[in-house]
Amino acid sequence: MSDAFHKDCPARMVLDHVSGRWAVLVLTALGDGPQRFHELRARVEGVSEKMLSQTLRTLVRDGFVRRTVKPSRPPQVSYALTGLGEGVTRSLQPLFDWVRDHAGDILAAQAAHDRTASE
Amino acid sequence: MSDAFHKDCPARMVLDHVSGRWAVLVLTALGDGPQRFHELRARVEGVSEKMLSQTLRTLVRDGFVRRTVKPSRPPQVSYALTGLGEGVTRSLQPLFDWVRDHAGDILAAQAAHDRTASE
Repeated sequence: MSDAFHKDCPARMVLDHVSGRWAVLVLTALGDGPQRFHELRARVEGVSEKMLSQTLRTLVRDGFVRRTVKPSRPPQVSYALTGLGEGVTRSLQPLFDWVRDHAGDILAAQAAHDRTASE
Repeated sequence: MSDAFHKDCPARMVLDHVSGRWAVLVLTALGDGPQRFHELRARVEGVSEKMLSQTLRTLVRDGFVRRTVKPSRPPQVSYALTGLGEGVTRSLQPLFDWVRDHAGDILAAQAAHDRTASE
């Protein structure tokens, strides 16, 4: 059993890899099925090529994502969730849904906060 | 309805604030009840004073956390989840639990990956 509150526990490192904007978006996008690099890049708006490569490399090394090269001309590379990846992506779904449904509440809270701060 | 895949949608900004190592740990810690700054800092190992202040400031502005000053000598400042904060913290729980239960699998996947890469 590992505890993310402790700085040297593996859970802390795993939390770092799967939380954070790009990992959450890439995992959620792959939840819809395998995708090519350029498809992912179009889906996850605003991610740079470099950040997407780096995010995918980390997710592949962690065992969340499988990279498959089809030996065609030119070779076709695609990315898909592994069993572990499906598990963590399911665990991210409630957060993703909550954020989608409550983004408006947060904007309202920020506006109220900023009004008070400037009084 | 806001979609975190779009770069200018509020959901993207909210996802940035509540995902990420420190926000996840601070929200989860406050899930156990209100806490003072130094208590949080002890609980969330490795967080600097600066990062904890910054994380709390963002969470307060977003409406997730309430900062209360008790007018004693010296004044006592404590932090607690709001209703919104309780909601988002509940949505983070499955991720937190998954990471705790599977950190060992990820370490094994990394070791297997690094063995293959060095062959």
